[in-house]
Amino acid sequence: MTTRRQFLAGGAVLLGAALAERATAAPEIQSRDSSDTASPLFNGKAYTPVVTPNGWTLPPRLNNGVKEFHLVAEKVKREFAPGSTINCWGYNGSTPGPTIEAIEGDRVRIFVTNRLPEHTSVHWHGIRLPNGMDGVGGLTQPHIPPGKTYVYEFTLKRSGTFMYHPHSDDMVQVAMGMMGLFIVHPKNPKERPVDRDYCILLHNWDVEAGTATPKSSTMTEFNLWTFNSRAFPGTAPLLAGKGDRVRIRIGNLSMHDHPIHLHGYDVHVTGTDGGWLPKSAQIPEITINVPVGAMRAFELIADEPGDWPMHCHKLHHTMGPMGHNIPNMLGVQHDDIVHKINRLVDGAMAMGETGMAEMQEMKMALPENTLPMMSGDGPFGPLEMGGMFTLLKVRDGLARDDYRDPGWYRHPPGSQAREIDMP
Amino acid sequence: MTTRRQFLAGGAVLLGAALAERATAAPEIQSRDSSDTASPLFNGKAYTPVVTPNGWTLPPRLNNGVKEFHLVAEKVKREFAPGSTINCWGYNGSTPGPTIEAIEGDRVRIFVTNRLPEHTSVHWHGIRLPNGMDGVGGLTQPHIPPGKTYVYEFTLKRSGTFMYHPHSDDMVQVAMGMMGLFIVHPKNPKERPVDRDYCILLHNWDVEAGTATPKSSTMTEFNLWTFNSRAFPGTAPLLAGKGDRVRIRIGNLSMHDHPIHLHGYDVHVTGTDGGWLPKSAQIPEITINVPVGAMRAFELIADEPGDWPMHCHKLHHTMGPMGHNIPNMLGVQHDDIVHKINRLVDGAMAMGETGMAEMQEMKMALPENTLPMMSGDGPFGPLEMGGMFTLLKVRDGLARDDYRDPGWYRHPPGSQAREIDMP
Amino acid sequence: MTTRRQFLAGGAVLLGAALAERATAAPEIQSRDSSDTASPLFNGKAYTPVVTPNGWTLPPRLNNGVKEFHLVAEKVKREFAPGSTINCWGYNGSTPGPTIEAIEGDRVRIFVTNRLPEHTSVHWHGIRLPNGMDGVGGLTQPHIPPGKTYVYEFTLKRSGTFMYHPHSDDMVQVAMGMMGLFIVHPKNPKERPVDRDYCILLHNWDVEAGTATPKSSTMTEFNLWTFNSRAFPGTAPLLAGKGDRVRIRIGNLSMHDHPIHLHGYDVHVTGTDGGWLPKSAQIPEITINVPVGAMRAFELIADEPGDWPMHCHKLHHTMGPMGHNIPNMLGVQHDDIVHKINRLVDGAMAMGETGMAEMQEMKMALPENTLPMMSGDGPFGPLEMGGMFTLLKVRDGLARDDYRDPGWYRHPPGSQAREIDMP
Repeated sequence: MTTRRQFLAGGAVLLGAALAERATAAPEIQSRDSSDTASPLFNGKAYTPVVTPNGWTLPPRLNNGVKEFHLVAEKVKREFAPGSTINCWGYNGSTPGPTIEAIEGDRVRIFVTNRLPEHTSVHWHGIRLPNGMDGVGGLTQPHIPPGKTYVYEFTLKRSGTFMYHPHSDDMVQVAMGMMGLFIVHPKNPKERPVDRDYCILLHNWDVEAGTATPKSSTMTEFNLWTFNSRAFPGTAPLLAGKGDRVRIRIGNLSMHDHPIHLHGYDVHVTGTDGGWLPKSAQIPEITINVPVGAMRAFELIADEPGDWPMHCHKLHHTMGPMGHNIPNMLGVQHDDIVHKINRLVDGAMAMGETGMAEMQEMKMALPENTLPMMSGDGPFGPLEMGGMFTLLKVRDGLARDDYRDPGWYRHPPGSQAREIDMP
Repeated sequence: MTTRRQFLAGGAVLLGAALAERATAAPEIQSRDSSDTASPLFNGKAYTPVVTPNGWTLPPRLNNGVKEFHLVAEKVKREFAPGSTINCWGYNGSTPGPTIEAIEGDRVRIFVTNRLPEHTSVHWHGIRLPNGMDGVGGLTQPHIPPGKTYVYEFTLKRSGTFMYHPHSDDMVQVAMGMMGLFIVHPKNPKERPVDRDYCILLHNWDVEAGTATPKSSTMTEFNLWTFNSRAFPGTAPLLAGKGDRVRIRIGNLSMHDHPIHLHGYDVHVTGTDGGWLPKSAQIPEITINVPVGAMRAFELIADEPGDWPMHCHKLHHTMGPMGHNIPNMLGVQHDDIVHKINRLVDGAMAMGETGMAEMQEMKMALPENTLPMMSGDGPFGPLEMGGMFTLLKVRDGLARDDYRDPGWYRHPPGSQAREIDMP
Repeated sequence: MTTRRQFLAGGAVLLGAALAERATAAPEIQSRDSSDTASPLFNGKAYTPVVTPNGWTLPPRLNNGVKEFHLVAEKVKREFAPGSTINCWGYNGSTPGPTIEAIEGDRVRIFVTNRLPEHTSVHWHGIRLPNGMDGVGGLTQPHIPPGKTYVYEFTLKRSGTFMYHPHSDDMVQVAMGMMGLFIVHPKNPKERPVDRDYCILLHNWDVEAGTATPKSSTMTEFNLWTFNSRAFPGTAPLLAGKGDRVRIRIGNLSMHDHPIHLHGYDVHVTGTDGGWLPKSAQIPEITINVPVGAMRAFELIADEPGDWPMHCHKLHHTMGPMGHNIPNMLGVQHDDIVHKINRLVDGAMAMGETGMAEMQEMKMALPENTLPMMSGDGPFGPLEMGGMFTLLKVRDGLARDDYRDPGWYRHPPGSQAREIDMP
């Protein structure tokens, strides 16, 4: 017996197949190589669109009720921060590729053109779909050869926080920067509403000092750690008006888990790439550990104004690439041995007897295209950070659609640590 | 005042002690060195038995109501995948040792004979028991000298997912492969029922190319990652009939946590080695991060047919041992420098200008007993995987007791990504 | 319109500011360089005070209702275990610095004097406070120059498990040992009561064999792992009376997550540095994975007497610093090649054909100030442990305020694994 429900479901599949047959004309390719944060795509009142710091959202083309996207896998150049531009692989001119944004229940058709020198494929990480659309080269489809275009088509059964990345020569292609965010908003705009919604992909890179191309077979020892393929001080801040409900979605395609620590707030994880958490399972945290190949969406009420760091708490992940493997000179009077060390460690300066802070004040000559170990200037002096570090800037009176950097926070009198005289 | 309850509890202890005194005749040793998946031990209707992919369950001997097992710690040879056999340490001919399976409330007596060249002990990881049965050499008992047999005896107070491993010269003995699963089913067969129940132990190994014995003092830089001491393409698939409730239990005795990613499904963790999770604390996930020294049991309804990868999402953990530390040649025209590199990197080929995929198509000569970096053939071409990678194969109409590999999944028309012509 | 509530809140701020202006006389500096566990600070019936194994709690000075503390950042020498004293940085003579303990609702004023050779700052990790008190050098305040004193002041809005550490030259200063615990008890003593409350900070260090100063720019390859800057057998045990409710709070400022495994019990995580978990979200565990930059408080009922190990389950984290990178000699007859190896690996002995256990029985000459790889003596022989390893000693009849080490546990007859004769 065929029920009406089964009939309709079957009909939907047939209809989808028919549409796919006709859909041989891919949308025009849209490309962007800037690392400025793009304004969110405004979509009427259907949902609060996501903002991808230092990234952008790919506008869809509507075709008979199907949202069509066109991804192009290709080589891209990415400025990680002023002074360091890296030779990456990505999509549509950028790494991460453009964020794909759609609504629960949408049918999407995604064209993937391969302009890489080797075959590729796209896996839709976290999205429930028919096995043949899973994007595993060799297993569920042939790898997409260079120069060819494949088309994927499926219905978004559930809202959530997802990713896309290759499933061909995985380690090399992901190591080179091939990854993107895939955000599905709930069909009901009153479900899980937030005032601001940010999404970030974590990554690691192994780029030798003085060079510009990542080593793609490194397993654990990386030297560059990025939010959306940007390193501090190149990372865009996240903004919020006082009282805003803020969601931050973070995915990890690096080789290490990253404990993302937010100052000033405790937050609750409300979603993973598997779906949304029931209220009963939510716990308060200030450091969200994002495992490899996983995503975490967490929420907070921005009730405390200020400039609040958000960074990985593995402290070498908030450093730039220079300066590791330096002999420890703490406590050593080295006036007369600096020259000897400089001869041993080519091009490096000895770390002083007083720690590393003095290094950033020295005029240390950096290798070409290489960021310093500690960097950034704040309102009260050097920030001494790098890599996976940015700021959540919470301000009174910031409008919901205002994404302009408001500058440094000014502390009210009496609310700031201060020097005192000691007898 | 002694209550009836206390009296009975005390009596049970005396009875156990008396039984132990008599139990000096250990059961006959059962041994198995095959890496084929053994059929589950069928135990009437008491529970759904576990299947240990590439492993087996140790049959108990019943002795006056006590389930007796005999483990033998010894050197074993293990084929990790065709072409690579490693010199390990394990139990009863295999690594992992045989799975021990029992029922909540059972009293078990486990004989451990040491045929290793050094002393050992067995810790029953996660099981609540008297301190003297905890198996910590030097602390709760003497280490078991070579050639000697010790006997452990305790009552299984709770159902759950546990392990056994040595607590003597821990780092060396575990690094060599000494570990096993210990599954305790609920007393009530209607509690937590599933149709299929799989259990897997994760491990890492450091075996230099061209050799067969793991280095046992490596701390973090391993080159072989295994499910039940097998590496893809040597890993057995997990099977499920459409609609089956499937439990997968994964324990980790390696040196890194492993984010186990399952395609096609979202799952809920329902148990750890500490017990079962209340429904209110369960969250949806597609990547289960299994910490070191921990176990996770997760469940899903197999409602979507297909061949679904299950793998560690640290991408170098789905690679074979060869090929790391290769200079990155992406984008380099190297027709004339291959010979120079081959002289520098003994026996290796230069990675081409087009990524790593071309390597598996070349006839690269591998060192003896060493798996390639990327391997495996699928229905649509090379799979380019290794290490911690297997498939969950979900099929319509598969009987619950059918564990025969059904071959590759055939996608229905219109449900598969396909090539299109671009103008 | 100003409500009474706003008026009072504003008044409190003004009052606090006024107090701060007057508070230029810092409390006398209290210092301690012992690694004995200090008795807890008894505070009447307001709360069960924490015990910091191998550490101490900083007594506050009451000043017009404000609890004042004085931290001094300075160089310290720390004995990690007998035979190994390390040149660290810390607070008030010790690493970790003294535990700060206060009550929800308390106003605290913390003076920080910098006696280091470089600038520093103190971040109050997890505590909700005004942005200007967040302690991020360069961002929310100037770095504190050497020789200067800064004062922080804020109200403790919530109870919980927090930390303090520098936010200036972070990687170096934390790597050298600058860290401390900050415990805030609930205002209501009936909320979350426990009988014993322990707190521990995890850390890693890279100290080359034969030296005494950590390398401060190491990223991942450390060789010393500590509980409160002590390594086994230097770690103090945790004590509990049978039936006691025990809370253990663990924070991690190392570069790796640490899966802390407790034998004999399953526990529930009840708190993080973000707050307390609702009952509905608590899950049973025996291995608590503590991410970097995070804290976990977990609880258990000590109902099973014995000596129960608590250790990191990454097995190289329960080893001392010596012995890695040794060639694996398992199965090799090496009577005649020991001399050759000794010439290659300076000062090391070849690991025998029988594993590592034989090494600790040999009279292996250790480099000066360096702990052996495996160490410790138990009631039944060598323990073969090091690093992050201690014992929870549960005894019948131990009084709540008794913290004297009760010695080794004696197993009742019939409750201990024992040797049997095999025919």
